[in-house]
Amino acid sequence: MGKASLDCEHTLSLAIREATGQGCPPLLAKALDYAVFPGGARVRPRLCLAVALANGNSEPRLASAAATAIELLHCASLVHDDLPCFDDAIERRGKPSLHAAFGQRIAVLSGDALIVAAFQQLAQLGSSVTHPVRMAQVTAIVAAGVGGPMGICAGQAWECEPRVDLEHYHQAKTGALFVAATCAGAAAAGVPVEPWRELGNSIGEAYQVADDIQDAIADTATIGKPTGIDVALDRPSAVRELGLQGAVKRLERCIEKGLDSIPACKGRALLHDVVQQQSNRFFPQGIKHTAA
Amino acid sequence: MGKASLDCEHTLSLAIREATGQGCPPLLAKALDYAVFPGGARVRPRLCLAVALANGNSEPRLASAAATAIELLHCASLVHDDLPCFDDAIERRGKPSLHAAFGQRIAVLSGDALIVAAFQQLAQLGSSVTHPVRMAQVTAIVAAGVGGPMGICAGQAWECEPRVDLEHYHQAKTGALFVAATCAGAAAAGVPVEPWRELGNSIGEAYQVADDIQDAIADTATIGKPTGIDVALDRPSAVRELGLQGAVKRLERCIEKGLDSIPACKGRALLHDVVQQQSNRFFPQGIKHTAA
Repeated sequence: MGKASLDCEHTLSLAIREATGQGCPPLLAKALDYAVFPGGARVRPRLCLAVALANGNSEPRLASAAATAIELLHCASLVHDDLPCFDDAIERRGKPSLHAAFGQRIAVLSGDALIVAAFQQLAQLGSSVTHPVRMAQVTAIVAAGVGGPMGICAGQAWECEPRVDLEHYHQAKTGALFVAATCAGAAAAGVPVEPWRELGNSIGEAYQVADDIQDAIADTATIGKPTGIDVALDRPSAVRELGLQGAVKRLERCIEKGLDSIPACKGRALLHDVVQQQSNRFFPQGIKHTAA
Repeated sequence: MGKASLDCEHTLSLAIREATGQGCPPLLAKALDYAVFPGGARVRPRLCLAVALANGNSEPRLASAAATAIELLHCASLVHDDLPCFDDAIERRGKPSLHAAFGQRIAVLSGDALIVAAFQQLAQLGSSVTHPVRMAQVTAIVAAGVGGPMGICAGQAWECEPRVDLEHYHQAKTGALFVAATCAGAAAAGVPVEPWRELGNSIGEAYQVADDIQDAIADTATIGKPTGIDVALDRPSAVRELGLQGAVKRLERCIEKGLDSIPACKGRALLHDVVQQQSNRFFPQGIKHTAA
C-alpha cells in the first residue's frame, strides 16, 4: 500500500504535467496542480490498486492509469462541488477552495480539464497495453462511475431535485466512484468485475457516513474544510437520520459488510488487512467504536 | 453528407438515452437532452465523418462514436461557456441557455456529464471494434482537443489571463476541436493523422472568424444567441482587428487554405465539395464574397 500510494502520487504528477504542458494558460496550469496537490487520503486510487494487486495485477500500467483517472475525477468533483452555486465552500484540504483562490471561471474549467485528463490517462496507454480490450472495459467502468445516469454527477444532481431518492443519492454521489475503483482494479487485472461491486459499494457508503459524522462533529481546523454544511444546506445525512451513535454503528456495519464481500483471490488476506486498516481511519478521533 | 448527418442525430440520441437512463435525476436527464437537441449545424461531427468516409471508413462504428463524442464535447462547452461567470448568455440556439432554463447547478453538472458521455461513447465500443488500438488513438486525439494544455478548455481559460496569447487563444478555443474532428476521422479510418491537421485548423479558424463576423453584424433573432458579446466583454475578434471586409477576406483565405490542404485520398474530390459547400454556409446572409 505504501508502494501503491507512492505510485499514485507519481502518476498523478505526470498527468498534471501533461495537462499543463507547453501552450497551457498559466492560471489554468497553476489551478490544475492546486486541485490535485497536496492531496487527501487518496482512498479511491489506493483501493483500485489494492484490488488489482490482490488479483495478480497482470496489466500494471492499466491499473495505475485507472487509479490515476479515478483520483483526477474525484478532484474534479471536489472543485465543482465547492462552487458558490453548490456548497459555496471557501476551504478545502486546509487551504482556500479552488474558486476562492483562482475565481469561478478557472474553477469551472479546471474541473472540466481534470475530467478530460482522466480519460486521457487511459487512452494514451494505446498500444502499450497487452490487452487493449481491457482498457476499453476499464474506461467504460470509470465513465459509469462519474457520468449519468448513476455516476457522481448524477449523485450531485439529486441535490437539485425537489424530492430526493435517498438511495440513489448516496449510491451515486459517493458510492459510484468507489464501485468504479474496485471494479476497474478487477478489470485491469482481467478478472470478472461483478463480484467486486459490493466492496466498492460498502466502502463508499462507509466513507459517506464517515463524512456525515465529521460534518456533524469536527471543526473546520481539524478537517480542513467547512463543517455543519449538511444542516446548513438541509441535506440528508446519516447523523441527522440516525443520531451520532446510530451513524457510528452504521459505519461499522458498512465496513464489515465490505470486508466480508471480498471475493476469493490470491491476495485476499492482504487486501482484507489493507481495507480494514484504511477504513479504521474513517472513524473521527475520539469516536468510540468496535475495531472492525 | 445527408446520411452522415442522419447517423449523427441518431447516435447522439442513443448517447443521451444512455446517459439519462434508469436512476438518473429527472432534471439532469431533461437538461442533457436540452443541451444536445435540437442541435446546431453539427459541423464538427460532419467533418469527422466526411474525413473517415474519404479514407474508406474501414471502422465505421469508431468513426461514428468519434463524431458523436466530438459533438457532445462541443455541446458541453456551450453549456459551460454560457454560464454567468463566462458569457452570461441567456439565449442559445434560439431558446433560453441551459442555466437560464435549469439553473446554474444543473448547467455545471450537465457539462460534466456530457464530457463523460463523450468518452463513454468511445469506450463502450469495447471488443466490437476490429482495431481496439485505433480506438485508444481516437480517444487520445479527442481528449487532446478538449483538455489542457491546448484543447478548448485551455482556449476558454485564456480569457482569464491578463495578457492573451492570441494565437494560442484562437487555436485552442475553436481550432482544437476541429483538428480533433479531422484527425479522429483519419485515425478511425486507419490512415496517418498528421496530414489531416491543417484541414481542421483552417476550417476551425474560418469558423471562428465567421463567428466574429456574426457577433458583429447579426441580430439575436437571426442567430439565436446574443450578439455584440466580443465588444461588450472586450474580447479579441477578427472584425475588431481587421474591420468587416478584412475579416471576410480572412474567412475566404482560411477556407481556401483548408481546401488546398486536403491530402490525396480515394474520396478527395467528394470531400472537397462537401467542405466547400459546408464552408459557404459560414458567410452570413448579405455578405458579399468570392465563392471559394
